[in-house]
Amino acid sequence: MKTCVDENSQPKDTTIPVVGEAKIKNPIKFGRFVVEDDAVLVNISKRYMDKSAKSRKKVVHQYFESAGPRGKVYFDTSKTKCAVVTCGGLCPGLNDVIRAVVMTAYHQYNVPSVLGIQYGLAGFIPEYGYDVIELTPDYVSRIHEFGGTILGSSRGPQDPEDIVDALERMNVSILFMIGGDGTMRAASKVVAEISRRGLAISVVGLPKTIDNDINFASPSFGFDTAVETATTAIRGAHVEATGAPWGIGLVKVMGRHAGYIAAQSALSCQEVNFVLIPEDPFDIDGENGFLAALERRMHERGNSVIVVAEGAGQEHLEGSGKTDASGNVKLGDFALLLKERIIQYFKEKGVDPTLKYIDPSYIIRSVPANANDRIYCSFLGINAVHAGMSGRTGLVISRWNGRYVHIPMEEVTRCKKRISTCSNYWRAVLESTGQPISMRNDKS
Amino acid sequence: MKTCVDENSQPKDTTIPVVGEAKIKNPIKFGRFVVEDDAVLVNISKRYMDKSAKSRKKVVHQYFESAGPRGKVYFDTSKTKCAVVTCGGLCPGLNDVIRAVVMTAYHQYNVPSVLGIQYGLAGFIPEYGYDVIELTPDYVSRIHEFGGTILGSSRGPQDPEDIVDALERMNVSILFMIGGDGTMRAASKVVAEISRRGLAISVVGLPKTIDNDINFASPSFGFDTAVETATTAIRGAHVEATGAPWGIGLVKVMGRHAGYIAAQSALSCQEVNFVLIPEDPFDIDGENGFLAALERRMHERGNSVIVVAEGAGQEHLEGSGKTDASGNVKLGDFALLLKERIIQYFKEKGVDPTLKYIDPSYIIRSVPANANDRIYCSFLGINAVHAGMSGRTGLVISRWNGRYVHIPMEEVTRCKKRISTCSNYWRAVLESTGQPISMRNDKS
Amino acid sequence: MKTCVDENSQPKDTTIPVVGEAKIKNPIKFGRFVVEDDAVLVNISKRYMDKSAKSRKKVVHQYFESAGPRGKVYFDTSKTKCAVVTCGGLCPGLNDVIRAVVMTAYHQYNVPSVLGIQYGLAGFIPEYGYDVIELTPDYVSRIHEFGGTILGSSRGPQDPEDIVDALERMNVSILFMIGGDGTMRAASKVVAEISRRGLAISVVGLPKTIDNDINFASPSFGFDTAVETATTAIRGAHVEATGAPWGIGLVKVMGRHAGYIAAQSALSCQEVNFVLIPEDPFDIDGENGFLAALERRMHERGNSVIVVAEGAGQEHLEGSGKTDASGNVKLGDFALLLKERIIQYFKEKGVDPTLKYIDPSYIIRSVPANANDRIYCSFLGINAVHAGMSGRTGLVISRWNGRYVHIPMEEVTRCKKRISTCSNYWRAVLESTGQPISMRNDKS
Amino acid sequence: MKTCVDENSQPKDTTIPVVGEAKIKNPIKFGRFVVEDDAVLVNISKRYMDKSAKSRKKVVHQYFESAGPRGKVYFDTSKTKCAVVTCGGLCPGLNDVIRAVVMTAYHQYNVPSVLGIQYGLAGFIPEYGYDVIELTPDYVSRIHEFGGTILGSSRGPQDPEDIVDALERMNVSILFMIGGDGTMRAASKVVAEISRRGLAISVVGLPKTIDNDINFASPSFGFDTAVETATTAIRGAHVEATGAPWGIGLVKVMGRHAGYIAAQSALSCQEVNFVLIPEDPFDIDGENGFLAALERRMHERGNSVIVVAEGAGQEHLEGSGKTDASGNVKLGDFALLLKERIIQYFKEKGVDPTLKYIDPSYIIRSVPANANDRIYCSFLGINAVHAGMSGRTGLVISRWNGRYVHIPMEEVTRCKKRISTCSNYWRAVLESTGQPISMRNDKS
Repeated sequence: MKTCVDENSQPKDTTIPVVGEAKIKNPIKFGRFVVEDDAVLVNISKRYMDKSAKSRKKVVHQYFESAGPRGKVYFDTSKTKCAVVTCGGLCPGLNDVIRAVVMTAYHQYNVPSVLGIQYGLAGFIPEYGYDVIELTPDYVSRIHEFGGTILGSSRGPQDPEDIVDALERMNVSILFMIGGDGTMRAASKVVAEISRRGLAISVVGLPKTIDNDINFASPSFGFDTAVETATTAIRGAHVEATGAPWGIGLVKVMGRHAGYIAAQSALSCQEVNFVLIPEDPFDIDGENGFLAALERRMHERGNSVIVVAEGAGQEHLEGSGKTDASGNVKLGDFALLLKERIIQYFKEKGVDPTLKYIDPSYIIRSVPANANDRIYCSFLGINAVHAGMSGRTGLVISRWNGRYVHIPMEEVTRCKKRISTCSNYWRAVLESTGQPISMRNDKS
Repeated sequence: MKTCVDENSQPKDTTIPVVGEAKIKNPIKFGRFVVEDDAVLVNISKRYMDKSAKSRKKVVHQYFESAGPRGKVYFDTSKTKCAVVTCGGLCPGLNDVIRAVVMTAYHQYNVPSVLGIQYGLAGFIPEYGYDVIELTPDYVSRIHEFGGTILGSSRGPQDPEDIVDALERMNVSILFMIGGDGTMRAASKVVAEISRRGLAISVVGLPKTIDNDINFASPSFGFDTAVETATTAIRGAHVEATGAPWGIGLVKVMGRHAGYIAAQSALSCQEVNFVLIPEDPFDIDGENGFLAALERRMHERGNSVIVVAEGAGQEHLEGSGKTDASGNVKLGDFALLLKERIIQYFKEKGVDPTLKYIDPSYIIRSVPANANDRIYCSFLGINAVHAGMSGRTGLVISRWNGRYVHIPMEEVTRCKKRISTCSNYWRAVLESTGQPISMRNDKS
Repeated sequence: MKTCVDENSQPKDTTIPVVGEAKIKNPIKFGRFVVEDDAVLVNISKRYMDKSAKSRKKVVHQYFESAGPRGKVYFDTSKTKCAVVTCGGLCPGLNDVIRAVVMTAYHQYNVPSVLGIQYGLAGFIPEYGYDVIELTPDYVSRIHEFGGTILGSSRGPQDPEDIVDALERMNVSILFMIGGDGTMRAASKVVAEISRRGLAISVVGLPKTIDNDINFASPSFGFDTAVETATTAIRGAHVEATGAPWGIGLVKVMGRHAGYIAAQSALSCQEVNFVLIPEDPFDIDGENGFLAALERRMHERGNSVIVVAEGAGQEHLEGSGKTDASGNVKLGDFALLLKERIIQYFKEKGVDPTLKYIDPSYIIRSVPANANDRIYCSFLGINAVHAGMSGRTGLVISRWNGRYVHIPMEEVTRCKKRISTCSNYWRAVLESTGQPISMRNDKS
Repeated sequence: MKTCVDENSQPKDTTIPVVGEAKIKNPIKFGRFVVEDDAVLVNISKRYMDKSAKSRKKVVHQYFESAGPRGKVYFDTSKTKCAVVTCGGLCPGLNDVIRAVVMTAYHQYNVPSVLGIQYGLAGFIPEYGYDVIELTPDYVSRIHEFGGTILGSSRGPQDPEDIVDALERMNVSILFMIGGDGTMRAASKVVAEISRRGLAISVVGLPKTIDNDINFASPSFGFDTAVETATTAIRGAHVEATGAPWGIGLVKVMGRHAGYIAAQSALSCQEVNFVLIPEDPFDIDGENGFLAALERRMHERGNSVIVVAEGAGQEHLEGSGKTDASGNVKLGDFALLLKERIIQYFKEKGVDPTLKYIDPSYIIRSVPANANDRIYCSFLGINAVHAGMSGRTGLVISRWNGRYVHIPMEEVTRCKKRISTCSNYWRAVLESTGQPISMRNDKS
């Protein structure tokens, strides 16, 4: 057995920057204010604690600040204008986050205005001509019933200077940015530009990734809904595979660099026979390769369901080297390649498989959030407003060890989360599918 | 305004053939037996009735025989072996039909055995080596909870002589064939071969078409479920289209020769802007063509949802001339062509559309039947058993003018049902989408 | 075997009254106008036709006028104000009908205004102080996503004179009334009062009954959705019943005078063991009574699912003689009585049943319409506008023999639709449940 | 603002008892074995850590042992017979846990047999005559598609001696007990009796509570599904409330001592106006009481949705002092009392409210688990088998701080989990509903 590194790296620094000292009494009337020692220990394993205890040097434990309302706020809430923007691909729960931000800003802090920036970062740039939407409690009251984002979204960066110009022009004090790690990097640049100009504008990030691959965002909002929806498609593949002689169902799901949706859906379905993810490279040909394993399964049971994460098997494609508007490397379409290879392989063996290919990506991205994600998104939005009002900036709201916390933006973009292929989690997937532990001919 | 032909042609003959005279008392203990004058008038419009009344010749009205149990049956039920086979592509409700056949045969007629033929007509042919399944009430009791067919299915014909050989070998008295019009044609040949050999074997057809395009099958089972499922995908397309600048959602749904799923889903969603169906040819280019219409819509609203039936726009593709195993002409993939044309068109105009393409076909085909289709399928299966027991053969079970009826097999295969583009139904679709009445440059 | 009467009585008269002669060219630009001989024969059985043919008297066949647009309209559409009101209990699809009326009135006839009357007939009466809502296409564009009625509803009649006063005051030319048979009777009185005053106001009814018991409304809108939702509750009862020793699931569903929801849900579920409906009286005690039958089932299988229509078994309750605001007799709660009797019966026999009681009524009433009902409601609303514009009044829109038709209001209120207990439909229910054909000790 | 105690008390002892030393090499071929220092710190707040650091005494941190496979096992797996039993009320996910136990025991440890004990603890007692079911991978392969428990369940204790007799008789080495805190207490007694007899039988508990009120089970399995299902019922109440003049929707949900389902559903719905839970006592009458608050809301908005946890308001009922078979105090039906009081209150004020009462309890309990709970249940079942095989006993499997852990049985039964009414969680509920912070006249 291999030993493994921890799933998540330690943060370098957990200090949250501020735009100024919070001195104003928080207007919230009820409940408990969060205090400094509510913070949450980052690494909670006995191994880490034992090591710390044995260390000769004085160990300073790392904590993530707890999210929630503070007794003092920085902004004069009745004069604080907020703005919200959604960036990148759709993900269930966007409208829930927007709604929670608007409701909390209005009802708990009595802000005069929350602006909705349309179509991502482009909405800040006058040339695009996108109007700003005035988001009121009435306007957002039922938006959580619908998928997508009422603000619209788009990919791609914009000049941080232009964004800060827009914030100054609109007189925005707190900006809520909902987006992936590209957006969080853009947010960091905006924070830097604000700081350079000496402005008191707070920027709070809400990490969004349907792939569940953002560091310290565990799990990301919308992921549970995505898995639930993917499960339906996979069940369809199972029905198709078992309904035909030599039937194969091939489902492509999202997961550019991390196979969480593929793995989690397989665990939920219990009817998947192969899960292919970017973290676990495999050979297609050869005695131990995928096709040989598939053939064995077909001879045993007569049908197969294969779930392929978008980014799996990229090593078998010639790289295009291209990137999309968000700067993400354009992945080749491995699932389609695999489809062709499977059909060809069996035809050469004299069998005519009935292969059904399902790509439910845009259905998954566009459904409304389920109950679980709705609540999660609400708390993310609520806590984002608390964080912004307190004068904090350059942070994201996340959940860590089961608590809502503040994490410095840099920490979530420093690296990507991946499935550890020697974890108990991945073992559970392999047990559920029955696929070989490795499909590589040269097992190193 | 154009005048139109009736949606459905008149049948040539409504007489149902029999394998022999029904002389045995029906074992059913309760309810009412169907008698000869329960039959249902085929054409029920005043126009037809007036014309008949004015006719100088004596008019013989055409009736479809009512389905249901007769007072006398032909087969000695306690010794009658039945067999069920499912052919062609998956369709919601197959398991419900199978279940109803088995339950009715066992519980109402006390048959000793119902055999399940696996993987379509191939299941009759010894060379394929597919086992026959003994279908008992216990075995089928919960199959309606799952999509697909527990028997498996396959495309393609088999020699009628081989099929009748198998029926003789297995000592089957009644064969229930569930499949599309290809299967119904195959069933007719099986009936002919049975007749040639002078055997007393009844063949009852249950027309299956997810496209809802079989003549006199109105609507076909599974169609309602298909529309409900397609609606979900289209809603996703709407969310994606409105969530991006210059957003376009393009959904491909089933419908080789008839656009019922596309049209009906659009009526259900109310959020579709273009429905393209095989019955209504259109130009892609030109002032009145689709692309120009799409551009106008984009300038007005900034987004569009397009639903394309599989068989639409085939005139814009070079025919491959190929056919699949069932003998169906292989259609070119017009939806993909359209996708490319749309992107290219707008790029040439300097706009970069965000087009999301969704193909939910196999998800639609594999879902379990909804409540409505479940009940429909039950009655089809129940009535199929009644028909077979009475000694009838060469017929299908269908619903006509709201009643379950017997229709000669030849009538359902004589032609295909189509959407009449000058019907109020199609007008409702056009009103719902707001698309131009015609997208042809040369309006004839 | 008993012989039965037809499920539906013949109409006395199928003539539709008008407010004046239609002389204005219909503004609709596309499609086909309905003409007189599109009418649909009411009785389409061979029995009826043969009898007619043999009759010595000249037989005049009865037809229902086809719904749809006519070539000429009565109202000057660009000046025609419409009003919509929803009355009685909630039913899936109300918002879909409202939406279709508004969309058709605006987009096909360019009316200047459609008014929404709030909270049923009370909304016409100034004393209640309910505002009138201006229903625009924008206002109604997404209402079909939600259950209930955006107009609100209420029970109970109002003085027809007050209603017509309000119509005059608001200058309404066409009134769309959506409600049950009480509402249709109220509508008839409004028509009479309008006629008495010599006004040119058209009143079009849209029969609403979740019980599916309105004559000639077959099936009523929302019924399919109701059955689908009831099925979920019944499945829960089945799970509870099989999950406990001597487990019994008892589900109460709507059905005051007709057991359609109970019967149809049982057919859809296939897991119900007893369906009790108002049309089929039964004894509770005695050798052939319900409790004895239940006991036999429990000894055989150890669990039971019972579905009781609201109005079943009323003969076992002392009548309260009370009526609700709509004038409906207040039914006693038989399901609760039955619950107590079952528990007591088995306790006396020394067994302690685990009985779970489920009443899903308000969940059923409040869900949004499913795809099938959405489309049905759309066509009802569309055709209601066509009918009103043509100058027709005192009619309802319905579907008969599969076609949309006009039916005089009096015909739908003359009697209620019931399940015939000797129909093949009821036999299918009995076969599905396996309950005794009769649970009466004194079988007459 | 009040300060609050921590939501969960510290455990007294986290040591897990064993039936004997694990010496046999674990047969699992892949992945990583859990080692001692994988344990998870129980209290992870900075407050606790700082206090520990300042303490003069040497602080021994408390850890929960990580769940998962160990390098050594105690039982000779190929000869180890397992047994599974489900106790108490139904809860989504029971079948998923059973399935995971069976699959893991067979496929990872190659056990020869897993026995299913029927109908709870009664299934151990010969007098009841319930057969034991042989649970094979084939038998359980699709049970997760259905709600409830395939084993059946029942309430009430049985003599621990009888249970251990049965285990000896059946030669069971590992017993998996799925049930509430009553069942966990029973399990502790079984462990004690096993120990007294000196037997090597391991007992592993899987805490089940649809109320989410078991200490250290956070959240309990099935809770997410329950909330999702309750949300549907509450949405129905909202539709009914807004659909009638002076409309009130009253929904009763589960929650005997803790209002988690009520609170969580309200957060998910965002359409609830009052949440009443056992943890937050309130007055019904008086200026600050519930009825006055309801009246104010009705005057402002004309409708209200009220969600009442089963155990709320018990102080307003005369205690019956009765207990059910499981020993739980029988709660009075406060929701029905409240219903009467609301109607009476408004009638006295001259208003006739339209109150719709919905009790979805058994629908909630009987649905299949959603995707999230499916996966959660799988991991609970998998880890239960690992724990049992390692020779551990008297423990439960749970999730703590996001990790799967072992917790001593005594710790989960020592007290019940409650909502802290001064937590940020409860504030979020109050903000979402807009209800008064307190509805007590005498605010202490």
